[in-house]
Amino acid sequence: MTDSLFIRACFKQPTERTPVWIMRQAGRYLPQYRAVRAGHSFTDMYKTPDLATEVTLQPLDILGVDAAILFSDILVVPEAMGMELNFLEGKGPVFADPLRTEQQLKNLNAVEATRDLDFVMQAIKQIRRALGDRVPLIGFCGAPWTLATYMVEGGASRNYRHIKEWRFKRPDLLENLINRITESLIAYCRAQMDAGAQAIQIFDSWAGLLDAEGFERFALKPVKKLLAAIRRPGVPLIYFPKGGMLWLEKLNQLDADVIGLDWNVDPVEAQRITAGRFALQGNLDPTALYADPEQVRRHTLKMLAAFGDGTGHVANLGHGILPDIPVESARAFVETIQSESAAFRKTEQAG
Amino acid sequence: MTDSLFIRACFKQPTERTPVWIMRQAGRYLPQYRAVRAGHSFTDMYKTPDLATEVTLQPLDILGVDAAILFSDILVVPEAMGMELNFLEGKGPVFADPLRTEQQLKNLNAVEATRDLDFVMQAIKQIRRALGDRVPLIGFCGAPWTLATYMVEGGASRNYRHIKEWRFKRPDLLENLINRITESLIAYCRAQMDAGAQAIQIFDSWAGLLDAEGFERFALKPVKKLLAAIRRPGVPLIYFPKGGMLWLEKLNQLDADVIGLDWNVDPVEAQRITAGRFALQGNLDPTALYADPEQVRRHTLKMLAAFGDGTGHVANLGHGILPDIPVESARAFVETIQSESAAFRKTEQAG
Repeated sequence: MTDSLFIRACFKQPTERTPVWIMRQAGRYLPQYRAVRAGHSFTDMYKTPDLATEVTLQPLDILGVDAAILFSDILVVPEAMGMELNFLEGKGPVFADPLRTEQQLKNLNAVEATRDLDFVMQAIKQIRRALGDRVPLIGFCGAPWTLATYMVEGGASRNYRHIKEWRFKRPDLLENLINRITESLIAYCRAQMDAGAQAIQIFDSWAGLLDAEGFERFALKPVKKLLAAIRRPGVPLIYFPKGGMLWLEKLNQLDADVIGLDWNVDPVEAQRITAGRFALQGNLDPTALYADPEQVRRHTLKMLAAFGDGTGHVANLGHGILPDIPVESARAFVETIQSESAAFRKTEQAG
Repeated sequence: MTDSLFIRACFKQPTERTPVWIMRQAGRYLPQYRAVRAGHSFTDMYKTPDLATEVTLQPLDILGVDAAILFSDILVVPEAMGMELNFLEGKGPVFADPLRTEQQLKNLNAVEATRDLDFVMQAIKQIRRALGDRVPLIGFCGAPWTLATYMVEGGASRNYRHIKEWRFKRPDLLENLINRITESLIAYCRAQMDAGAQAIQIFDSWAGLLDAEGFERFALKPVKKLLAAIRRPGVPLIYFPKGGMLWLEKLNQLDADVIGLDWNVDPVEAQRITAGRFALQGNLDPTALYADPEQVRRHTLKMLAAFGDGTGHVANLGHGILPDIPVESARAFVETIQSESAAFRKTEQAG
């Protein structure tokens, strides 16, 4: 798998074309996913290796993407730390008791990943067996700041009052919480790699809530620690700070291989700022897939052009695919990248 | 009023201290506002000059801010263009028939501001009389892209599916809509200045939804046109692209006096990128006001320090004040700026 398109692109090695996968590619926009989901709760799906394997592989057959990503949820870690988690229909994930006091913080467990999250490791092993040498498997986790936000808010939030109170009123508690999450994530990511994950993506979905100083202290610092602790040869590490494109220059200090770009940022700018330190992943606006397939093709070509010759580019959307996207649009996105990206490669060797 | 702290700071003229006002300063966090609101609908409040005047002046007495801002709503313009607008308790503004078809687009009226929005002009005149020479009055409007978003979505939205469909599938319709909104805004802003508005702020609250190319085409281009059309001597023009801090460099082409900064951006960076072309307004995280007054004071001092010597800085939050902020925290913010900012000024003349 180290010679797969995806892994080579993550390490900025030459590839004959640009690899592509889609965040949330195993998701509700797929009729085949909805068929599985109809018979099982979301929780059952990610806790049952058979089901997780089935839906993880669906987009390979339907879209032909160049990487698989473990079907799971970032909130399994807070759950393993002792927080009761429920997925409510139409409301998304909700913690029964949001983390609001120092005592609750003290009561959190440190995750022992192979024991507490064995269902994830079993799913990874089973998916790897099912994949064979087809495409690599990406494992993932939520970033410390993002998990802290979910834990303190407890669920969907309008103004993120509670986590922001911690940020501005009790930064000591927030730092303590983030340190504890980071320790658990280190164990969790290592266990995923032991089980067979061939890349790790860290989703910092709430990076955009922060101010510049807060981003450095509560998002970047723990991610730096996490990346350094889980580094292994041959396993690319991807950091995706959604809404954090303003701070690309600060990311230059990270020991990551790939930076995920959201759709706000111009790839030309991102390449300039990161100056070749990382491969870049992204970044078509997920809502561009509401357009007709022929328009999706044009939007996708424009994105490819913005990434120059395409070396060190892992094509993706700039955030997860939305549940009401037509499958044919997703397919147009993948097909355009796979059929057209080779034409952007430098052709010196032909001269 | 041209020698007021606020107007001078907007034009980057020297001021002995930094002026401060707060976005949404006439709002629900004030008990005195809630007392008025208890007896009247939100619509009645902004359509009745007596009531609009009363609440516009409240924060002057309660907080002692250095500028007043008209109590109104950005959606009066789409309403005057013919869209039925309702404010539903707990749901915010909702258009009865969201704009989704070419026919609806054709049916929109061009606003004749003094006729269609006379209640705004009457409010401005009455507020100016009540203010006398106390502080200047800021008028405002929503930016074309932001109003288009509200009109097409119809109300609160999760993924902004409809406006994004227009952006990626029917950019021709979107451009047409934005042009029509811009024409109405030109008339509206001119009428506000005729009535007595001493500065104009353009709120681009949904700038952050866009991709880089979309921001240039659908947000920046019409704002450039709007600013050029309404420019008058002595009346500062403020553009606030919330969530658009990634594109500060592109703003350098605007004929604005002041750029509003949201809380994401580091003021030092913003000053570097805009290179003295504009005064800068902002930008403490509104949720920092959840902290205790003594902490608010420290967060505010840190903000002041980030703006250097403070010339060309109009202090504000990085977005509107939230409804559940304690008044004493808002007061600590204002008082800190008013009592401490002079100390940041350059002291060459003293040497």
